Amino acid sequence: MTRHFTSLMETGADETAALVESARAFKRSPPKNRPLAGKSVAFCFMNPSLRTQVSCEVAAASLGAHPVTLFLGSGTWKIAVEEGVVMDGDCPEHAREAVPVLARLCDALALRAFPAGKDWKEDRKDAYLAAFRRHSTVPVISLESAMGHPCQGLADQMTLRERMDPRGKEFLLTWAPHIKPLPLAVPHSAAEAAALAGMNVTIARPPGFDLDPEVMEKLSSVCKARGARLRVSDKPQEAYRGAHAVYAKAWGSLSEYGRPLPADPAFRALWRVSADKMALTDGAVFMHCLPVRRNVEVDDAVLDGPSSVVVDQAENRLHTAKAVLYRLLTGKHYSQEASQCPMPSAR
Amino acid sequence: MTRHFTSLMETGADETAALVESARAFKRSPPKNRPLAGKSVAFCFMNPSLRTQVSCEVAAASLGAHPVTLFLGSGTWKIAVEEGVVMDGDCPEHAREAVPVLARLCDALALRAFPAGKDWKEDRKDAYLAAFRRHSTVPVISLESAMGHPCQGLADQMTLRERMDPRGKEFLLTWAPHIKPLPLAVPHSAAEAAALAGMNVTIARPPGFDLDPEVMEKLSSVCKARGARLRVSDKPQEAYRGAHAVYAKAWGSLSEYGRPLPADPAFRALWRVSADKMALTDGAVFMHCLPVRRNVEVDDAVLDGPSSVVVDQAENRLHTAKAVLYRLLTGKHYSQEASQCPMPSAR
Amino acid sequence: MTRHFTSLMETGADETAALVESARAFKRSPPKNRPLAGKSVAFCFMNPSLRTQVSCEVAAASLGAHPVTLFLGSGTWKIAVEEGVVMDGDCPEHAREAVPVLARLCDALALRAFPAGKDWKEDRKDAYLAAFRRHSTVPVISLESAMGHPCQGLADQMTLRERMDPRGKEFLLTWAPHIKPLPLAVPHSAAEAAALAGMNVTIARPPGFDLDPEVMEKLSSVCKARGARLRVSDKPQEAYRGAHAVYAKAWGSLSEYGRPLPADPAFRALWRVSADKMALTDGAVFMHCLPVRRNVEVDDAVLDGPSSVVVDQAENRLHTAKAVLYRLLTGKHYSQEASQCPMPSAR
Repeated sequence: MTRHFTSLMETGADETAALVESARAFKRSPPKNRPLAGKSVAFCFMNPSLRTQVSCEVAAASLGAHPVTLFLGSGTWKIAVEEGVVMDGDCPEHAREAVPVLARLCDALALRAFPAGKDWKEDRKDAYLAAFRRHSTVPVISLESAMGHPCQGLADQMTLRERMDPRGKEFLLTWAPHIKPLPLAVPHSAAEAAALAGMNVTIARPPGFDLDPEVMEKLSSVCKARGARLRVSDKPQEAYRGAHAVYAKAWGSLSEYGRPLPADPAFRALWRVSADKMALTDGAVFMHCLPVRRNVEVDDAVLDGPSSVVVDQAENRLHTAKAVLYRLLTGKHYSQEASQCPMPSAR
Repeated sequence: MTRHFTSLMETGADETAALVESARAFKRSPPKNRPLAGKSVAFCFMNPSLRTQVSCEVAAASLGAHPVTLFLGSGTWKIAVEEGVVMDGDCPEHAREAVPVLARLCDALALRAFPAGKDWKEDRKDAYLAAFRRHSTVPVISLESAMGHPCQGLADQMTLRERMDPRGKEFLLTWAPHIKPLPLAVPHSAAEAAALAGMNVTIARPPGFDLDPEVMEKLSSVCKARGARLRVSDKPQEAYRGAHAVYAKAWGSLSEYGRPLPADPAFRALWRVSADKMALTDGAVFMHCLPVRRNVEVDDAVLDGPSSVVVDQAENRLHTAKAVLYRLLTGKHYSQEASQCPMPSAR
Repeated sequence: MTRHFTSLMETGADETAALVESARAFKRSPPKNRPLAGKSVAFCFMNPSLRTQVSCEVAAASLGAHPVTLFLGSGTWKIAVEEGVVMDGDCPEHAREAVPVLARLCDALALRAFPAGKDWKEDRKDAYLAAFRRHSTVPVISLESAMGHPCQGLADQMTLRERMDPRGKEFLLTWAPHIKPLPLAVPHSAAEAAALAGMNVTIARPPGFDLDPEVMEKLSSVCKARGARLRVSDKPQEAYRGAHAVYAKAWGSLSEYGRPLPADPAFRALWRVSADKMALTDGAVFMHCLPVRRNVEVDDAVLDGPSSVVVDQAENRLHTAKAVLYRLLTGKHYSQEASQCPMPSAR
């Protein structure tokens, strides 16, 4: 077990699988006692959230912990992270104080910090998340940073495992049209989740829309280690063939970082997920992290059809959040047996 | 029992009275156990709130449930509700996903969505509330929509029942001056609450300030069924005579929807609630949903005098919120007997 | 015991010391039961917060109470406080209703209301806090107002007592450079906390940066009563000599209220806390309420050095918040004995 939960690749295949098993046990039989009673967790948001805030709050509260939801920089002070800085700018607070203080007041810290969207070389350093990891004396959880969204990835892997034995199955991550060049955290984590589960991974994207090179390298080495295939394609039609899972997501180009996406209707139609394209697959489930722009990224017919598991993915955010919190705060994985023999209250 | 709690008229006279009895039992003897332990409720606000947020949070928490307070569109994503829309505008999320997801994460969903204030024909459809009802698999509670504010109405009826046997008594809903054309949710629900309690209802308002015709029709049929009288007046002085309860509220004109209110001092004085006017009543209690603009809607002398029950109304928001949550989440009404025989903790 | 906790001077030396003892007992051995179960506390913020929100929420929740965090004027209605006002301006709600209502819904009310920063004569009246005290039927806690920050002062005194027997020791409150003329709440409360603990108090500040005269008068009489010395200096170098605790804080001038602070580098260097200056002390601890502007108010070397207790101060916000809530809501102080003999759950 790593101390923090900020990257699926760092967490690794075995631990990821164990967390998913724990999450499935939470889903089958939630604990009757409050195993995290007396604990508190700070959920720090620098960006909007719906599923993440609700799933985290409910996960913590249902285990007996107190969730503190903070909107950093709006209800609170803006936080500097650079070392040695003369703080005469617009940040009245430094992570060197803010993080250790939060770590004294709470038993775990979770952070959502989107990239700024101007310079990928800077953004990919994930300065805020790195500062939280560096200065925290308690476990840190990423609720999405520039490089990944491990909580989403864990829920994605859980959803895949609920529908199939993922080993050797075909996972297609397909780029989707959008009105804005979105971050790459979700495509990174979705591909990682599938690779760590032993799937063959195909990434279909227009030229110029590759994932981060370091992420690709790690994907490649995980796939190789698990005897799976990693493939990149710019032909969506082809890429759908034989897929067991289609994961759609819009993201921006790293080579032309921050640039608006092509809005050409034919281009959009080529990449939008449709029932026609889904018909090319091997009965694939349709996945998306949500929120999704209907009829821009994917047609209503797919989202509202029987192959869509997007609401399951979102529900599984709750169960996987419980698994992560339980693991980081007790050192153990939750198992159905534990829940069947109710322990005396931890109070 | 209807599945949702979004309209007093839909809830009906018997169920409304039973909820008020439950609320009075909660007020007399709050449960010692945590009957809703392990449950969570999402309270979604698209508009500001004070009483509503606090009463809902405290009601849920004191029954053992976890309240998740969300400010939709600010801390979260903006939500589209139209079906079949191509989502290339400013809403990144659709109710078709957002609502089912919330319903997987929480055991009940509550929504405050004020009208936009431009087109009453559109506003009265309550698109957001309708979308929550349509797409939720768990009970939906209205925390105020264009057409009504049933939680407020329930607290109003409770306050009336604490002071009198309302059957056959005189209820005056009087329009009050204001600096802005406010929504009609509260006057709608206040009149409904009184009618459902069997009171004779008088609505005093300037010409052009009628309530919604469908609301008036339902009020008329409820009053008829209960042997009570429904009257509309544009003569405030007359309307006060014989009243047992005076409920003041400012609202905008539906026929000139969105237009500023008349600011003429004489007109304002004619409609402002004063001690003189209250002296014409049969010792009426003075009611208002709050917030109230002092010395614009009503004089200090009335608000600070002994007939004012406005703070009781607000306190009763807590007890009625408990009654609604308890009913929707357990299927039962709370009774004093239940509270006197403490059950073993649900944990 | 006073009914409210809004001023250290009003709370007095004995009660302040007892609260610190209670806080130390909470730190050593948190209660296993939930002594405030069923209670709720409204934490009302008119200004940003990090330590205060988190420490208050966690303190309340860990004692079993439900914390309701409100951002007054943003998520809620703007509140008027003047008596007799015709409310045709931008405040739709008056404290005469808002406060009694909150007091019906919650068991204690806490308020953060910074000064407006234009007229000290007005600001020092603390109109919002005064309105809360006047209209609340339940205990009121100040989370910082123009005149003081008693929760911070209590944590400061606790931190001092953890490091030394403060009686007769030398406490230096030193003005520090900043980019903005900050409020005086913290320097007021820090000096009060030290004086009430029996320390000799030195206040080093540039000419024109005196504390509020009434605060100085009370400090003087407390110091006299405790046989201690109160001194004001404009020579920072001298002032550091022999200090056992150095408390740095930036604040604005009351005589030139609202004016920007001098930005002259030499002036800033004269007043910035440095390792050189700390070397003049008698091994003093370094204190700051946070957030702190690094290398503007104080050098990295001091903040990151072994004498800094700033993170302890912040942690002690949690324990002192528990002590205050416990005292106000149960009438008792918490003691280690109480925690060693677990009482049956208050539920």
